[in-house]
Amino acid sequence: MIVEGKNPVKELLRSDATVEKLYVLKTADPQIAFIVSRALEKKIKIIYADKELLGKLTVSGKHQGALAITTEFRYAEIADILEAAKKKNKPRLILVLDGIEDPHNLGAVIRAAECAGADGIIIGKHRAVGVTDTVVKISAGASAHTLIARVTNINDAIRTLKDEFINIVAADIDGESVYGGGPSLKGDIALVIGGENGGVRELTKKLCDRVVSIPMFGKVNSLNASVACGIILYEILRQTGGLG
Amino acid sequence: MIVEGKNPVKELLRSDATVEKLYVLKTADPQIAFIVSRALEKKIKIIYADKELLGKLTVSGKHQGALAITTEFRYAEIADILEAAKKKNKPRLILVLDGIEDPHNLGAVIRAAECAGADGIIIGKHRAVGVTDTVVKISAGASAHTLIARVTNINDAIRTLKDEFINIVAADIDGESVYGGGPSLKGDIALVIGGENGGVRELTKKLCDRVVSIPMFGKVNSLNASVACGIILYEILRQTGGLG
Repeated sequence: MIVEGKNPVKELLRSDATVEKLYVLKTADPQIAFIVSRALEKKIKIIYADKELLGKLTVSGKHQGALAITTEFRYAEIADILEAAKKKNKPRLILVLDGIEDPHNLGAVIRAAECAGADGIIIGKHRAVGVTDTVVKISAGASAHTLIARVTNINDAIRTLKDEFINIVAADIDGESVYGGGPSLKGDIALVIGGENGGVRELTKKLCDRVVSIPMFGKVNSLNASVACGIILYEILRQTGGLG
Repeated sequence: MIVEGKNPVKELLRSDATVEKLYVLKTADPQIAFIVSRALEKKIKIIYADKELLGKLTVSGKHQGALAITTEFRYAEIADILEAAKKKNKPRLILVLDGIEDPHNLGAVIRAAECAGADGIIIGKHRAVGVTDTVVKISAGASAHTLIARVTNINDAIRTLKDEFINIVAADIDGESVYGGGPSLKGDIALVIGGENGGVRELTKKLCDRVVSIPMFGKVNSLNASVACGIILYEILRQTGGLG
């Protein structure tokens, strides 16, 4: 889809729509500068174009020096993920992301989930990045092979998974060591990973059957969300016998 | 340090120096546009400034619309890492990065190494990103608490570690499963992680005592370098008994 004109493009950048590319005229116009700065923040690819190129791309003829191309990722439903899981001869493994905001993290998490053979990923619509162009790129193709459902309410999604007798395991700095004793990580599991700021929310944590953490030995002790996700996903696979 | 003028800034961006910020005049000058595009590629923070601000920042008075602020990360020596490791009452654990080019990956790897209590990181000077401003930011403070040595020759660095009786373990897609049987990952270990393109080079792999891989179950099967690094680091900790 093509969105053009300074105000429409500004509104587009304010929304959570997926913007693939932004074409702007090389100009000192402050509104264009504002559009560029927002696009930089959102890590959208910016192409500095001349009037001729914009003239070729425009549909309405009124681009005003700004034109964006949007794409839509095709999200799955939770039911699709559960259905796909049923067909596999292994314990169910679903990822629930509670507020990942950085497209690099989401892309890397999708790669980790795909490599670990997870059945799907559930992400929230609010306070979270969607599957944008950057995410698709960082996921190195994994997004095209992963069922990703985008829901309004993460807690409702977790309740749906509980109704399906899936164990809900949250990853949080306060949890017991994922390597320690305690109930094993066997069976069907949904792993809940929190966002870069604040981790899994309290209300969400209360819905979980177990809270686990990764032991840390440094001074800063803050793992990147996608790295933490990869470590716990593979420890779940190891404990469920999925690594042979 | 301040570097100013179109040509000096262009040269700076061609070098591997760490550029913290770039100030450019809002202008349609093609040389400035070229500088901006190079800076965007290198993920350098760009500030669009007016003549007044540039006038305040300039030292020579000849900024020509482009002014960069560089910083230098203080690298350690391999000897510093070995010395620091000696003081800890645990097996030595060193990370060797063979060509990580993405600052997001390097930042996340530094975080993972710091959390895992690694003694230090060795990176190469060529075909690899240094500890730039972006890397420092992504590392979430971990870079200030991690000894990082930057060497001309990764293979020589590995030979130095071998002389210290450290087992060299490379991570590569062709390796045996890190979870499978085979020689255990006990004792002093240097983990060699390859770059985003091509992984660990053949000559380097030949120097290694063992090559391990992470089993993957998807269609794309490509883990982000920092995620792979985190998974293997923690599996090493588990096998060496470092997780209690």
